Amino acid sequence: MASTLPVVTVLCPAGVDGVDGADAPAGLDTLRDRAEIRTVVAEDLADGLRGADALFLWDFFSSAVSDAWHAADALRWIHVAAAGVDKMLFDELIASDVVVTNAQGIFDRPIAEYVLGAVIARAKDFAGSLTRQHDGVWEHRETHQVRGSTALVIGTGAIGREIATLLRAVGVEVFAAGRTARSDDPDFGTVIASEDLAAHIGAADHIINAAPLTPQTRGLIDGDALSAVAEGAHLVNIGRGESVDEAALVEALDSGPLGFATLDVFAVEPLPEDSPLWGREDVLLSAHMSGDVVGWRDALAEQFLDNARRWLDREPLANVVDKERGYVPRT
Amino acid sequence: MASTLPVVTVLCPAGVDGVDGADAPAGLDTLRDRAEIRTVVAEDLADGLRGADALFLWDFFSSAVSDAWHAADALRWIHVAAAGVDKMLFDELIASDVVVTNAQGIFDRPIAEYVLGAVIARAKDFAGSLTRQHDGVWEHRETHQVRGSTALVIGTGAIGREIATLLRAVGVEVFAAGRTARSDDPDFGTVIASEDLAAHIGAADHIINAAPLTPQTRGLIDGDALSAVAEGAHLVNIGRGESVDEAALVEALDSGPLGFATLDVFAVEPLPEDSPLWGREDVLLSAHMSGDVVGWRDALAEQFLDNARRWLDREPLANVVDKERGYVPRT
Repeated sequence: MASTLPVVTVLCPAGVDGVDGADAPAGLDTLRDRAEIRTVVAEDLADGLRGADALFLWDFFSSAVSDAWHAADALRWIHVAAAGVDKMLFDELIASDVVVTNAQGIFDRPIAEYVLGAVIARAKDFAGSLTRQHDGVWEHRETHQVRGSTALVIGTGAIGREIATLLRAVGVEVFAAGRTARSDDPDFGTVIASEDLAAHIGAADHIINAAPLTPQTRGLIDGDALSAVAEGAHLVNIGRGESVDEAALVEALDSGPLGFATLDVFAVEPLPEDSPLWGREDVLLSAHMSGDVVGWRDALAEQFLDNARRWLDREPLANVVDKERGYVPRT
Repeated sequence: MASTLPVVTVLCPAGVDGVDGADAPAGLDTLRDRAEIRTVVAEDLADGLRGADALFLWDFFSSAVSDAWHAADALRWIHVAAAGVDKMLFDELIASDVVVTNAQGIFDRPIAEYVLGAVIARAKDFAGSLTRQHDGVWEHRETHQVRGSTALVIGTGAIGREIATLLRAVGVEVFAAGRTARSDDPDFGTVIASEDLAAHIGAADHIINAAPLTPQTRGLIDGDALSAVAEGAHLVNIGRGESVDEAALVEALDSGPLGFATLDVFAVEPLPEDSPLWGREDVLLSAHMSGDVVGWRDALAEQFLDNARRWLDREPLANVVDKERGYVPRT
């Protein structure tokens, strides 16, 4: 009977001795009566993919899939425990019939909270207060009201929409940048075309990158855009580091109009020791963690299990990625 | 004709040579056809008060009024450009017929934004990220979701209500502590009695002091309360420093359950150099500035001018303080 069960391979991060129980997703056992589950680490992925019907990328930063692709002789579905799929997409996968789904939804609210916090922290100069706190300096400053300020959200996907919802809840004016300009978006109202970013970026006090990394968004926030921001403007990046020209960012902080940057993602992660972004008082950086609230791993596992049950029941999968575009299109 | 005009004395901060034009409130000239305006500094206040009908405490941290009180031979009204009136009230003033009004309303929203920012910054560990940023350390951590967390707002005045409104807008559960327990408050729902604080404080992830300083709130957040908070709880103080036992606060951070404190007010301001609150990574402190957004001085001046026009027109004044209670009662 076992040979008739579909095979689901789960790529886990390597523990000290292969797959560490603590590193495997919770609840896999609930599928074992309906599927053969193979937990593997990256170096064993080719073996694990042979004959596998589905692949769960629990170790979502791995680029092991392209290396092991030659062994994917029966694969029909890949689920990625991440919102951004840029790291795992490659030409053969895109051209194939393999369906890719992602973790859309899990990170929306935590990331939107992080962005709202970053916007307020900038307006209230929490970074300046912490520096003075560590230096023992008492200095009253005037700060800024958040209500009535303007934010530009780059990226009109689920995360960008949740960001807009939270910012609007506290009275921030929001507009967005997306693939195509439009004036009647239900969440954003006005959406400018990303290709016209430099012409519109100056209207925002806070510029928030929430776009997936695609050929259109790689390097989108470049020197032209960063030199056109309003004096003292604030850049928040929770999308992908490669969407921002980091050299131009440093230049815009040093001698351009940019006032502050809150960065959770970087072109190279972990951020290299010699990055000029370290140690700056006008940068708040965090270690690619804006969406990772307590319980996030369990939520990601449960989301996969839910999609796996749909797949076993031959129901439509949730969060199907448009592999050409590189993200889940809005339904 | 001039002698028939009412006299309004304006206490200004001392500049290098007496009253500096830049330190006087904007727009006083608009009253000059209806009142005799005297701008004075603290050392000249007694002279300025003789024959004065009204006093505007533009220099709102001054305690000069009690010193000059013997000269207040015609005084009917004092307006204070501050939300807290604890520093300027004294027995003779309380017992007198002089009406006191304050700056209620100007600071509500800026302070509520500061508190919301503090709540999110704690949940997302921005302080920890800034420390690592300055030290060049990349370290992923799990953070906390704000939605679904619980906040206790101590103080049911206008500032406390605005804080509740903003916290609820992002999904925080809010309850309050006030003079009397009740279960049907329109903004807070449940209000516990402040005297029962220690019995209820453990239910909150974030404890926010927004109470005026009164005999009931002095020392309210004491060792008993601080040792009863939930493990890792966060104390925010934007009310008055004297409401918190600072020694007990340090103790609760060092060896008790308190996880973090965001403090904008202190028992002694500026915070003394030898305060143990300086230099701690589990404290974000700022220099009594949570309500002071760009434009705040103009807003305070305009609020006084508006009340002065009411007074000259013999209309009811706005923001009349209950001098016995020490704050503007809710209407």
